[in-house]
Amino acid sequence: MDHYMQMAWEEAQKGVNSGDGGPFGAVIIKDGEVIASAHNEVVKSNDPTAHAEMLSIRKASAYLKSFSLEGCTLYVTGEPCPMCFSAIHWAHIDKVYYCNTKNDAARIGFDDQFITEVILGKKEDPIPFIHTPDEQCNVLFSQWYDDPKKTPY
Amino acid sequence: MDHYMQMAWEEAQKGVNSGDGGPFGAVIIKDGEVIASAHNEVVKSNDPTAHAEMLSIRKASAYLKSFSLEGCTLYVTGEPCPMCFSAIHWAHIDKVYYCNTKNDAARIGFDDQFITEVILGKKEDPIPFIHTPDEQCNVLFSQWYDDPKKTPY
Repeated sequence: MDHYMQMAWEEAQKGVNSGDGGPFGAVIIKDGEVIASAHNEVVKSNDPTAHAEMLSIRKASAYLKSFSLEGCTLYVTGEPCPMCFSAIHWAHIDKVYYCNTKNDAARIGFDDQFITEVILGKKEDPIPFIHTPDEQCNVLFSQWYDDPKKTPY
Repeated sequence: MDHYMQMAWEEAQKGVNSGDGGPFGAVIIKDGEVIASAHNEVVKSNDPTAHAEMLSIRKASAYLKSFSLEGCTLYVTGEPCPMCFSAIHWAHIDKVYYCNTKNDAARIGFDDQFITEVILGKKEDPIPFIHTPDEQCNVLFSQWYDDPKKTPY
């Protein structure tokens, strides 16, 4: 096992031992340095978004004082779910290494695959997403877009 | 505009005026009560995950002391990106109302659609996701799964 994946595994092991959440750990590396390390804390924090990848992205961004993680590599014990996959894209991480797959996660009760299949249109979405257009929101979007002082991200 | 969407819009307007991030605001309602309210803070917090939906989900979960937001409705000024869409599913929110669409967001420079198309396999993923299987992670997954004291989520 790669040195950095070993660190991600140790994080995950810590989380399992302490009952913080699922068996997921992640580290983020930049220029050979570990700049963030986290394990799943959904149970501990009562936060459904507290996946290892999300927490490590937030720590790395805080450390670098930047919402862009270009030049960073993420190591994680399990294949990222669609939430974390998307966060990795928003963060512009360079590369991801993962150990166990979504199928391995499904076997221990995590339904990442269900969310992916809803996105793919293979499963019906149990949650209604209702579109209620209103001109006020268009005006707001334009106001942001036309603001010369805005920081694009 | 619906009363709750108006509140989401006001949150978004606050965020745009203060330069905290994009024109996105969200509120979460349970039993008629506003239990969380947030706007995008990607720029302010240097956090690429700080979308309005994510922050409001985290606040609502903290308020309810639960990683499940069953019985809650989310109102948001823009259609959730795949990260937030997935977080809404992980949180088991009942229903979502949104104002502007992904196309409206694309017009002002947000590439949600790109991430969705990568997930759909319509666009090549610019980020390599590299699978490095290792027995240690299988052992870890089984350890969690077999633990009678674990809290499933």
